Amino acid sequence: MTQNSENTLKVAQQAFENLTHGMATGKWEPLLDMFTEDFTLWFPMGKFHGLNVGKQPARELFEFVSECFGTTLKVTSLDRVTSNETTVIFEFTDEGLFLGQPYKRRVAISLDVRGDKICAYREYFGSDGKSY
Amino acid sequence: MTQNSENTLKVAQQAFENLTHGMATGKWEPLLDMFTEDFTLWFPMGKFHGLNVGKQPARELFEFVSECFGTTLKVTSLDRVTSNETTVIFEFTDEGLFLGQPYKRRVAISLDVRGDKICAYREYFGSDGKSY
Repeated sequence: MTQNSENTLKVAQQAFENLTHGMATGKWEPLLDMFTEDFTLWFPMGKFHGLNVGKQPARELFEFVSECFGTTLKVTSLDRVTSNETTVIFEFTDEGLFLGQPYKRRVAISLDVRGDKICAYREYFGSDGKSY
Repeated sequence: MTQNSENTLKVAQQAFENLTHGMATGKWEPLLDMFTEDFTLWFPMGKFHGLNVGKQPARELFEFVSECFGTTLKVTSLDRVTSNETTVIFEFTDEGLFLGQPYKRRVAISLDVRGDKICAYREYFGSDGKSY
């Protein structure tokens, strides 16, 4: 693994930790602080479906996650972490209460890293939110 | 890149080519021939939702894709290929006619490679099938 790809992995792992911190606490600043000003976020569905550009839509999306799940959403298994010099993909399952209803899903998140920041975030759903 | 990860990438790229060949022709044998006997496939939704074990469910799934799309489903852009010694993830968009209706989607496919075979296939949807 080259120095670049080691740094990329380290930065993305910090972002993933900040993501799970946000899920557990509703505090998203540590994650948002890692996004570049020209940050882009692709989301699979709902009001944030498609491409969201900039930090403000990202802030709104993550605050919406907390509105829907409270602090119930947890990563239940981290199945694969696959990376190269620029991109790190986390495949995991999560589980919680979505508006009070049981929720579980397979998810993949692909992060592009630039320096010590995240410049892109692409989320993909591997199941329907009701079972793995 | 180590020799192992070079081989892994090469095998997965061949599988991805065979996948697009299947989409374009309805001929899935070249892809199915690359799967191990203990092959597992996770699919996000519909009748194949969740874990499918073995080659026969995979055959049924890909034949079902051809029933739904005919030969209209095409990869419109391959956005990222991210890999390590065992796993290769393709992020792409595709487009076609699903039961005659316009369809387009962001997709991520994660393939685990063993030797010159694919032993696992995990599909994730990055959009709703109506727009990217």
